[in-house]
Amino acid sequence: MPDILGHNYIGGARSAAGTVTLQSHDATTGEALPYRFHQATPAEVDAAAQAAAQAYPAFRSLSPLRRAAFLDAIATQLEALDTDFIEQVTRETALPNARILGERGRTSGQMRLFAQVLRRGDFLGARIDRAQPDRQPLPRADIRQYRLGVGPVAVFGASNFPLAFSTAGGDTAAALAAGCPVVFKAHSGHMATAERVADAIIRAAEQTGMPKGVFNMIYGAGVGEALVKHPAIQAVGFTGSLKGGRALCDMAAARPQPIPVFAEMSSINPVLVLPEALALRGEQIARELAASVVLGCGQFCTNPGLVIGVRSTAFSAFTEQLAAQLAEQPAQTMLNLGTLASYRKGVSALLAHPRIRHLSGQPLQEHKAQPQLFKADVSLLIDGDPLLQEEVFGPATVLVEVADVGELQQALNGLHGQLTATLIGEPADLQTHAELLPLLEQKVGRVLFNGYPTGVEVCDAMVHGGPYPATSDARGTSVGSLAIERFLRPVCYQNCPDALLPEALQNANPLGIARLVDGLSSRDAL
Amino acid sequence: MPDILGHNYIGGARSAAGTVTLQSHDATTGEALPYRFHQATPAEVDAAAQAAAQAYPAFRSLSPLRRAAFLDAIATQLEALDTDFIEQVTRETALPNARILGERGRTSGQMRLFAQVLRRGDFLGARIDRAQPDRQPLPRADIRQYRLGVGPVAVFGASNFPLAFSTAGGDTAAALAAGCPVVFKAHSGHMATAERVADAIIRAAEQTGMPKGVFNMIYGAGVGEALVKHPAIQAVGFTGSLKGGRALCDMAAARPQPIPVFAEMSSINPVLVLPEALALRGEQIARELAASVVLGCGQFCTNPGLVIGVRSTAFSAFTEQLAAQLAEQPAQTMLNLGTLASYRKGVSALLAHPRIRHLSGQPLQEHKAQPQLFKADVSLLIDGDPLLQEEVFGPATVLVEVADVGELQQALNGLHGQLTATLIGEPADLQTHAELLPLLEQKVGRVLFNGYPTGVEVCDAMVHGGPYPATSDARGTSVGSLAIERFLRPVCYQNCPDALLPEALQNANPLGIARLVDGLSSRDAL
Repeated sequence: MPDILGHNYIGGARSAAGTVTLQSHDATTGEALPYRFHQATPAEVDAAAQAAAQAYPAFRSLSPLRRAAFLDAIATQLEALDTDFIEQVTRETALPNARILGERGRTSGQMRLFAQVLRRGDFLGARIDRAQPDRQPLPRADIRQYRLGVGPVAVFGASNFPLAFSTAGGDTAAALAAGCPVVFKAHSGHMATAERVADAIIRAAEQTGMPKGVFNMIYGAGVGEALVKHPAIQAVGFTGSLKGGRALCDMAAARPQPIPVFAEMSSINPVLVLPEALALRGEQIARELAASVVLGCGQFCTNPGLVIGVRSTAFSAFTEQLAAQLAEQPAQTMLNLGTLASYRKGVSALLAHPRIRHLSGQPLQEHKAQPQLFKADVSLLIDGDPLLQEEVFGPATVLVEVADVGELQQALNGLHGQLTATLIGEPADLQTHAELLPLLEQKVGRVLFNGYPTGVEVCDAMVHGGPYPATSDARGTSVGSLAIERFLRPVCYQNCPDALLPEALQNANPLGIARLVDGLSSRDAL
Repeated sequence: MPDILGHNYIGGARSAAGTVTLQSHDATTGEALPYRFHQATPAEVDAAAQAAAQAYPAFRSLSPLRRAAFLDAIATQLEALDTDFIEQVTRETALPNARILGERGRTSGQMRLFAQVLRRGDFLGARIDRAQPDRQPLPRADIRQYRLGVGPVAVFGASNFPLAFSTAGGDTAAALAAGCPVVFKAHSGHMATAERVADAIIRAAEQTGMPKGVFNMIYGAGVGEALVKHPAIQAVGFTGSLKGGRALCDMAAARPQPIPVFAEMSSINPVLVLPEALALRGEQIARELAASVVLGCGQFCTNPGLVIGVRSTAFSAFTEQLAAQLAEQPAQTMLNLGTLASYRKGVSALLAHPRIRHLSGQPLQEHKAQPQLFKADVSLLIDGDPLLQEEVFGPATVLVEVADVGELQQALNGLHGQLTATLIGEPADLQTHAELLPLLEQKVGRVLFNGYPTGVEVCDAMVHGGPYPATSDARGTSVGSLAIERFLRPVCYQNCPDALLPEALQNANPLGIARLVDGLSSRDAL
C-alpha cells in the first residue's frame, strides 16, 4: 500500500507549509489512524486556487476528446485501486467492502459517462446563425455560440459517499468535463481515502498530459471559507448539511463578484402509499420500505424520511408491519461519531415532540445507530412544523396518516423542496390521485413510481436536485450527465474569421457534432 | 387613443387600492403627463404574486403550442398598437419615432422567436433512459427527464428600451415561454407606455385562453423589494444599474429560500483597434465608432465606453479623427432628467481625474447630453481604477493608449466582466494578436470582429450576458432564445406510467421533438 503523505496537492506538486495537522479515524473503533494531514495555510489555499486559475486557459481550450481521455484515464486509475484501498475506505467509513466496491464502479462509471458526453458534444450547445447581408432594413451579422467552462471550481465532498460524491465524485467529474480545473476540499471523514483518490487523478492527469493545476486538493478545517471567497474560484459544488451549504451560499453571494453555489443539502423524500396498493401488497411494501430506510444505515440523501398514507384498516395494518420490520433491523455503525451524535440529536427531538409518537426501534446504543419509526400528527405538516421538514440523517422515518385526499394535498403543500417523492400505487390509485403528480413535480427533482428513492442511477436523464432546501439551485442536478451544465456559460462570436473560431463552431464542423444552424439541428459542414 | 387608467394589473383585473400616485413625464420638456398611476400597496404586491402563483400550475402544464399561440398573439397585439402609441412612447422617452417603430418590430419579433422555440421543443431538454431489467448487478429503472418553468418570475424593465427590454421585453417573453407567469414592475420612466403594452398582453392572454394571472403589472417606487422577497416569486429578471441589480441580488440571496436573479447591469464594452486596421482605414473606423458612441444618445448597455490601441502615428491620427468626429455630433435629449443627471455626474468624474484628459466635447448644456471623448493613462486600467470600470451611461467614451501588446494584455487582464469586446483588425492583425481572443472570451459574453457592439441581434446564437458585473450570472443571456433556459429547471420521472408522463416524454412522442434516448438523439416513437 502506498504511503499516505498528508500533504496538500497544489499545481501538480505536494505542499505542507503549515504546522497544524489532522488525523482521520477508524469509524468502527473511533481510534485515530496513523497519518498526519497538513492543514492548508492561507497561502496554500491561495496557491491552490491560483494553480487552478493558471491551468484554466489551457484546460478549457483542450479539445473535448482530450478531456474525455483524461476522464477515462481517471476511471481506469480508480478501477486499479487495490483491495488495500477498499479496506482503507472501509476503515475510515465503516461502510462494508461490497458497498465500496460497488461505489468504486459507480465512480469510474460516472467518469466514463462524462467522457461520453464530451465525445457526443451536445454539452457544447453549438448554435450558428449565419449572416444575412441582404436582410432589410438591416443586414444580419454571422453569430455563433457555444459554451465553455466557467473557471476554477471549488468542490466540497460528502461523508456518505467517500468515492462517488467525494474527491473524484460527480461534482469533480462534471467540473473537469466542463473544462474547469478543480480545487477539492478533502472531507475530514476520509482523508486517507481522499489522498489515494487524488493520487489516482494526478496519475491520470500526467498520463494524458493535462496542465498542472487541473486538480488540486487541500486538507483542513476552516479552509473552505477562504476557498469560496477566493477571487479565482468561479463556482462551488457542495454536498452536505443544510447549515453548511447555506453558509457557503451566503459567503458566495456576498463576494465582490458573487458566484453560483450548487449545494445538495436536505431532503426527507416523502413516500406516498396509496390505498389500493396497501390493500393488495401492504406487507411487501412494508418490507421493501424498511429495507430502503435502513440501507447503508440510512445515510443517503434520498433516504425515505416521511411516509404518508390515507387512514384505513390497510394503512393501520401497514403501520404495524412497518413497525415490526424496523424493530427487527440490526444496529449499524455510522460513518463517524459526529454523524452518530447528529442522529441521536434528531431522534431525541422526535421523541420529545408532544405530537409525535414513537412506534418502534430499540433504545439508542452508545456506538451504533438503531432504526426508529415515528408517527406524527398531520397538523405538523400542514402547519409547517420545522421538525418534519428537517432531514434526520440516519435510519429513521416518520409516518403521517391523513384523513382523505384533501388533507393529503394540504400536507404536501406544506412540504419544502425535496430531491424525490415516491408514489406507491396500483394503476387505479394513480388514476384517482392524478392531481398529486403536478403538485409533486413542483416540489421535487425526481418523482418515482412503485420504487424506493435510495439508489440514484447515473445516467443522462437523472435529476438529483430539487427546490430549496433540497438544493440551493433547483436548475441543476448533481448526479447524471446534465450536471455538467452547472459549470458552463455561453459565449458568442460575431463575424469571427473561421480560423479563429473554436472547433465546435467552424464551418467544416471538425467535431462532427449536432449544431443548431439557422434554427435547425444539423451535423453538416457549412 | 385608449384611456390611461393607472391601475395595477392583478389576476386579469385592475386594482387601485392605494392613495399614493405617480406621474410620468414628457422627456423633452420635463412636464408631468396628465395620468395618475396608483402605487401598489403591500397587499396589492402580495395579490399580484399570488395571482401569478395561482396561474402557474395551469400555465406551466399547457402544451408548448398553446404558449406559442399566446406569444404570437402578443406579437400581433404589439404590431397593432397605433401611431398614437408610438407618439406616446416618444413623449415619455424622447426616443425618435423611427427608433420606436423599429423597437416595436424587434419586440414582436422576439415574441415570435420564442414561439418558434416552443414549437421546436428543444427547450424541453427531453431525455429518456429506458429500463434495463436484466442489467447486472442491478436492473436499471426507466428514467425520463424534461424541463419545466421554475415558477412565477418578477421582471424589472430597463429605461432605455421602453419596449424591447420592458413590459413585453426579452425577460417577459423568456419567462412566459418557459411557462412562468410574470409580475412586471412598471418602469417609472415610461408608465403610460407600460400600460398600453400591458393592455396588449392582457388582450392576447384573453384571446388565447390563458389563465388569469399569467401576466401582472404593478406601479410604484419601492414595490420591487416586496416583490423580490415574496415567497411565491421563484426568479428575477432585471436590466438596469449595477447598484440596483446588486441590491436585488443581495435581497434574493438573503431570502429564507434564495432565488436566482438574472441582472444585466454594467458594461463598458472595450473596443480594440489594431495597428494594420488603423493604418489602412483609421478614418473610417473613427467615423463608424463615433456613430456607435452617439447612437441613441449612447443609452445602450453595449455602448463602446473604452477604446484601446497601441501607440503609433496611426493611433495618434485616429485619436484626432475620433475627437473631431465626436466634436461634430449634436447634443441629444436623454431618456429623463435622472439619466441626464447621472451622465453629468459620470462626465464630471472623468473630467476631475488627474490621469484622464478631456479630448473633445462641448461643455455640458442644461437639458441635453453632449458627446465627450477622454483619454486615460493605461495605468488606470492595469491598477483597476474603479472609474474606468464603471459604465458612464451616455455618449462618452475613453481612449487608452498602450505601449505594446504586453501592456495591452495587462490592461485587458485588469478589466472586469463585460457584455462585449470588439476587435477591429485586418487578417494580419488578428493573426499577430491571436493570444487576445482567449483572454477576451474569459471576460465577455460576445466577441465582435470588425463591427460595433451597439445593435444586439435577437436570434438563437446571441449571448447578451457575461461575467460580473456585466451580469449577475454569466451562465445566462437576456437576449436571444437561450434566455429561456434561465427560467427552466429539470425534473425526472422514474418508472412512470406512460399516460401520466408529460407529452414530451411519452413513448409515442406526440410533440415530435428531438429527444436524447439512451444517449442518442432521436425523434422516433419508442
